[in-house]
Amino acid sequence: MAAWGERLAGVRGVLLDISGVLYDGGEDGGTPIPGSVEAVARLKRSQLKVRFCTNDSQKSRRELVGLLQRQGFDISEGEVTSPAPATSLILKERGLRPHLLIHDGVRSEFDQIDTSNPNCVVIADAGEGFSYQNMNKAFRVLMDLEKPVLISLGKGRYYKETSGLMLDVGAYMKALEYACGIEAEVVGKPSPEYFQSALKEMGVEAHEAIMIGDDIVGDVGGAQRCGMRALQVRTGKFRPSDEQHPEVKADGYVDNLAEAVDLLLQHAIK
Amino acid sequence: MAAWGERLAGVRGVLLDISGVLYDGGEDGGTPIPGSVEAVARLKRSQLKVRFCTNDSQKSRRELVGLLQRQGFDISEGEVTSPAPATSLILKERGLRPHLLIHDGVRSEFDQIDTSNPNCVVIADAGEGFSYQNMNKAFRVLMDLEKPVLISLGKGRYYKETSGLMLDVGAYMKALEYACGIEAEVVGKPSPEYFQSALKEMGVEAHEAIMIGDDIVGDVGGAQRCGMRALQVRTGKFRPSDEQHPEVKADGYVDNLAEAVDLLLQHAIK
Repeated sequence: MAAWGERLAGVRGVLLDISGVLYDGGEDGGTPIPGSVEAVARLKRSQLKVRFCTNDSQKSRRELVGLLQRQGFDISEGEVTSPAPATSLILKERGLRPHLLIHDGVRSEFDQIDTSNPNCVVIADAGEGFSYQNMNKAFRVLMDLEKPVLISLGKGRYYKETSGLMLDVGAYMKALEYACGIEAEVVGKPSPEYFQSALKEMGVEAHEAIMIGDDIVGDVGGAQRCGMRALQVRTGKFRPSDEQHPEVKADGYVDNLAEAVDLLLQHAIK
Repeated sequence: MAAWGERLAGVRGVLLDISGVLYDGGEDGGTPIPGSVEAVARLKRSQLKVRFCTNDSQKSRRELVGLLQRQGFDISEGEVTSPAPATSLILKERGLRPHLLIHDGVRSEFDQIDTSNPNCVVIADAGEGFSYQNMNKAFRVLMDLEKPVLISLGKGRYYKETSGLMLDVGAYMKALEYACGIEAEVVGKPSPEYFQSALKEMGVEAHEAIMIGDDIVGDVGGAQRCGMRALQVRTGKFRPSDEQHPEVKADGYVDNLAEAVDLLLQHAIK
């Protein structure tokens, strides 16, 4: 593989995944990954542009940012691209009235949305909310629509909490897709529109940007398909087999965000 | 379409789906579909061989047969091919120790199976048992295995109860397949091995047999791929769009089992 200097040349902007890169989530709010608080601070003091690009759909952007600030991270709401506000915009633009299968923590993002007489279903990482009864309700709403519309906030397979791996919204999206014979619209990584909106908000072109994430498919593969470079960290949901993934090869594998930032500060900025 | 006489010529054996053909299930035990009790009785008095072939995985065979007998059906345990006993045999043959994600009603079928230190996951229609916690447990068992084995009792998308459509095990199978990046082994319709075992137990060749079911894909498509003929009834989970299914065309559509039996007694037997 080429030297780091070559692989990181011309990088001007950095997109950071949050869960598994900044911190490991958990019922207690989770804990920062060692070195990540300082790494974010160093990155923000550099000439590189920084934006956070998450698929977290359990918490409102405000709640997520508050949690990270309490852990010591230098982060503000305006720096975060997250799927719930993006979905809320789409619903308004298209006049869609959703049946919401979502976590209570993110419900405030949909406060302004009409949910009467639903003509679509929106699912997010509902956690324990993915009961049989709630899934069946969403299924019946879809089956009653002439043209069923299912919007999924991300399509992750799983994520990691302090207690272990957790099924993510993608699994439940697949369940509804199969049961209804439809295909969901995904708002979140790896959707190209989602990465592009984050790049636009950062003001950097894809070829000048690098994604740092723990998900080989959603973060690394998704960013690369948009023309960005991407590093995988060996934290969060990372598994050793990811480095031999049959379809996706990261531009580099690093132990954690701290190492990624070391390399970026050394090689991207000349 | 050819006349019924031509379509039904040479039929010697009939495979009957149970739910949606004999009765509509429900929390109260369900209710017989009008005409079906008499239709089964007439079929059994004829020269045609009859066998019941179900994907029901919520109830033990004994419980299912008892429920049908109380509704007036002439049916015995030995006449029923159902996925739980078939799975139990497979587990024994292959020395598999399952983690069971199943309905309590069917647990007795696995009484003789060692479930310690599981090396596979078996899922069946668990109904309310498909909680997030139970799904996550099954997911973690699979992710901890070097070669994850997932056995699914059927892969139905949904079925119909008196209260409405209900998500079936297939949706949850897809969720685990996606989350783990694996493919499940299906025991039940439309698996060819499953139809073939039912045919063998009935003692009839595929080209001499006809399947009667309410599921255009699982019953009709599955039976046809095995070389059988198949009728779809307009009861149970039948939806008008099934008659224009893009991939599967039944050898005939009938209003209910009673009409199917009328036609069989008139045209199959000369």
